[in-house]
Amino acid sequence: MGSYPSEFNPVTKSLDSKEVEHLNPEDFRAKAHQVVDFIADFYKNIENYPASSQVQPGYLRTRMPQTAPDKPESLDAILKDVENDIIPGITQWVHPNFYGYFPASISSAAFLGEMLCACFNANGFSWVASPALTELEMVVMDWFAVMLRLPKCFMFSGTGGGVVQATTSEAVLVTILGARDRVLSKIGHEHAGKLVVYGSDQAHSMYNKQCKIAGIHPQNIRSIPARLEDEFALSPDTLRKFIEADVEAGLIPLFLCLTVGTTSTTAVDNINDLADLANKYNIWVHVDAAYGGNACICPEYRHFLDGIEKVDSLSLSPHKWLLCYAELCCLYVKNPSCVTNSLRTNPEYLRYKYSETDSVVSYKDWQVGTSRRFSPLRLYFVLRSYGVESLQSHIRSHIQYAITFERLVKSDGRFELVVPRRFSLVCFRLKQLNGYDASYTELLNRKLLEQVNSTGHALLTHSVVGGIYLLRFVVGSTLTEERHVIKTWEVVKELTNAILTEV
Amino acid sequence: MGSYPSEFNPVTKSLDSKEVEHLNPEDFRAKAHQVVDFIADFYKNIENYPASSQVQPGYLRTRMPQTAPDKPESLDAILKDVENDIIPGITQWVHPNFYGYFPASISSAAFLGEMLCACFNANGFSWVASPALTELEMVVMDWFAVMLRLPKCFMFSGTGGGVVQATTSEAVLVTILGARDRVLSKIGHEHAGKLVVYGSDQAHSMYNKQCKIAGIHPQNIRSIPARLEDEFALSPDTLRKFIEADVEAGLIPLFLCLTVGTTSTTAVDNINDLADLANKYNIWVHVDAAYGGNACICPEYRHFLDGIEKVDSLSLSPHKWLLCYAELCCLYVKNPSCVTNSLRTNPEYLRYKYSETDSVVSYKDWQVGTSRRFSPLRLYFVLRSYGVESLQSHIRSHIQYAITFERLVKSDGRFELVVPRRFSLVCFRLKQLNGYDASYTELLNRKLLEQVNSTGHALLTHSVVGGIYLLRFVVGSTLTEERHVIKTWEVVKELTNAILTEV
Repeated sequence: MGSYPSEFNPVTKSLDSKEVEHLNPEDFRAKAHQVVDFIADFYKNIENYPASSQVQPGYLRTRMPQTAPDKPESLDAILKDVENDIIPGITQWVHPNFYGYFPASISSAAFLGEMLCACFNANGFSWVASPALTELEMVVMDWFAVMLRLPKCFMFSGTGGGVVQATTSEAVLVTILGARDRVLSKIGHEHAGKLVVYGSDQAHSMYNKQCKIAGIHPQNIRSIPARLEDEFALSPDTLRKFIEADVEAGLIPLFLCLTVGTTSTTAVDNINDLADLANKYNIWVHVDAAYGGNACICPEYRHFLDGIEKVDSLSLSPHKWLLCYAELCCLYVKNPSCVTNSLRTNPEYLRYKYSETDSVVSYKDWQVGTSRRFSPLRLYFVLRSYGVESLQSHIRSHIQYAITFERLVKSDGRFELVVPRRFSLVCFRLKQLNGYDASYTELLNRKLLEQVNSTGHALLTHSVVGGIYLLRFVVGSTLTEERHVIKTWEVVKELTNAILTEV
Repeated sequence: MGSYPSEFNPVTKSLDSKEVEHLNPEDFRAKAHQVVDFIADFYKNIENYPASSQVQPGYLRTRMPQTAPDKPESLDAILKDVENDIIPGITQWVHPNFYGYFPASISSAAFLGEMLCACFNANGFSWVASPALTELEMVVMDWFAVMLRLPKCFMFSGTGGGVVQATTSEAVLVTILGARDRVLSKIGHEHAGKLVVYGSDQAHSMYNKQCKIAGIHPQNIRSIPARLEDEFALSPDTLRKFIEADVEAGLIPLFLCLTVGTTSTTAVDNINDLADLANKYNIWVHVDAAYGGNACICPEYRHFLDGIEKVDSLSLSPHKWLLCYAELCCLYVKNPSCVTNSLRTNPEYLRYKYSETDSVVSYKDWQVGTSRRFSPLRLYFVLRSYGVESLQSHIRSHIQYAITFERLVKSDGRFELVVPRRFSLVCFRLKQLNGYDASYTELLNRKLLEQVNSTGHALLTHSVVGGIYLLRFVVGSTLTEERHVIKTWEVVKELTNAILTEV
């Protein structure tokens, strides 16, 4: 420990700060303008790129040097490599023919918000660390709550509050932790192994993962089978049986994760009935509306959140369908102190005038990490640049395009819808052919998906529900128009013709 | 459940996609250029803004409408509000006189990388979701490992690997989970309550928090007092006593968190000795070098990582000192399968050709969440735009400015250094005055800090170690030059004159 840097004899040259032009404003201006043009041209020409990348594993390592350069390289050189080496390996999530997973939508508005978020590079872990970050987030979370017609119990202007998390995973984790520590503070940590959590087998895979992270005994994580006859929604009767069996066995029901718009088929759990049941057992109810919740800004879809006043927390991700760029998930909690009691830190080096009072919100106590970016600025820019009505129109137009695709599927006797379309996802497949078995049907559908994606024209993904392999076609990319949907259906049909000819 | 959106009769007007100009490339181009100029001007005029915000709690809510607008608003209107309402509430982390916490540094290079990260809005949860994201991250993590002279056991070109996390909190959480599940898979989850974790009381507050999140029994989280005579480093002898007592009590030592550059004083735990000790007990050793690790790209500071080959994982944050904008923390692990065994998900809807093989990395299994942004692009831009030598110069110049400040403090008999300066942090305070007690000394120092920050000229923060209240002066903001440091010292001196006159 005897060797301190102060003993080091610095090379004079290295101390000349002029050598490195960190952030000369005019240099910044020129280069940022150059990159704006690069991006505008990229968006303009996006349809010239394949929607799905066609590279093979390991493609990039062979094109890259093994070490970082010793000397500076020019922006032109870097952008050339971005164009030649990186872009070919990017699955184009911004492509109008990206219909996979749940699309992540973008907008000029959010891009500008992101530029300013980066510009300030301020850190909002506590109020004093940069007051505007905390205060704008509170305002915007309340604005968005009003758009969703959430009850006052989830708003700062009421008795609750909201926070931006990176993704639903983090949102669910902090709610499980709030629920866990609320119970353990009463019954003692030695009973942690008795806590049980519930969700349907259609809940996103992050539900199991976050429960395990929070230390829930893996044997106590219930994935309750949802059935085709319930349109893959969680059945209250089945849930009741699971809970009763656990209570009977001396276990402690802790947490229930419901979904409004499951990943495989956009199934919707009935919040009203399930929350009534859970509340009888003092179970924390969380609603994961990552994708479907965005549609609830339209009055005609708001009923999917009916009963929301009975739950403890709700999360939804404007980075999916509301044009915000990743990552931006909004979490609302009815009783923020449950979360902050679990996650609070109060080290001396972060204390200040208001830190020991309740007069300000400390968002570090609402999340896993300490530091936080000014991400809500993106949502602020979107809400103001669009206004509520345009955002509603945006959701409606995507659903209308999905209806178009649904009609096209229905019009072709070789195909069938696997479940009714509810939002902008169409789940479809080639029907089982006479004289062929289910596994052959799956093989044909797999082949169709692979061929669609290998054209580069469009990107679709798949799932399996109730043993049925299905193709997922989700409208959600910002640049998608009805013509893209129609053209993609033509590609699907042509490939189907070829595949069925070979049978 | 009977009411489906397909029954809804959409208003024709709302289906006209032309109504909302989501991302017209020329509209995007014009607005993004406008915001580039806004930002370049902001950086140019940054010294006209106070370093520390002077607003009061609740200032923003009264200036904001209670709901989002129904109709679109113009970019000019929004930028005006950013200027008038938001910027006054921002503590300017990019200000050259920002010396608080650990500064978060920025650069033109990383800004351009962030613009492209946003542009693509691609999601790197698995290889197929956007191959370039996974592959570039692997390349850049190896590049950075070479710069840090990490052994091959932490590199993809060796037997380990690296991953970008948002912050150190997430990095530490995933390593605790890897350690936890490695042990519980052998001894059974019913012994979870016996697991014990160790860190010094100088470890960042996130250490306790992440251990609690992972379900470690709160009584089993050891915060071992570090002493002034050890320069606040964790003592191997003391650690040994704690471990022996726990083993004696039938508990199971699990995890040790070491720090290279603690938050309060940049103390450095001795990796070599402490890892030797921990390895005898099969304890997972993690090194948190969030701030200090960045200096280790310079050969003369690399010794702070001596012994790193003996630990299991290392994290450090280029978003602090290497110009990357938040959030970008690099985590290296020797045995990635420990982490991925704990965090792996494999839902049907994310399966693809390579997902059941080991031929590709799935970064979703290296982190808490599922989705992930293209953040490594910022580090890629920094490494290429600067080159290794310029980045070393950058670190050295900041340390040299800190040495300047240290000399100024030493030259004034009213002040003292509380601990030796090691990196770019100077811990100092007004000495105890003859005839006054320790608490009065603290009061004077608190007053000095408050007055410095309330001038708006500069921002400093504080800590308390070994009962001593100290002021922290960290050089780390991109725009800081030696003249800023000298001027800030003059401000400190003048305020001190006034304060001591009043005594």
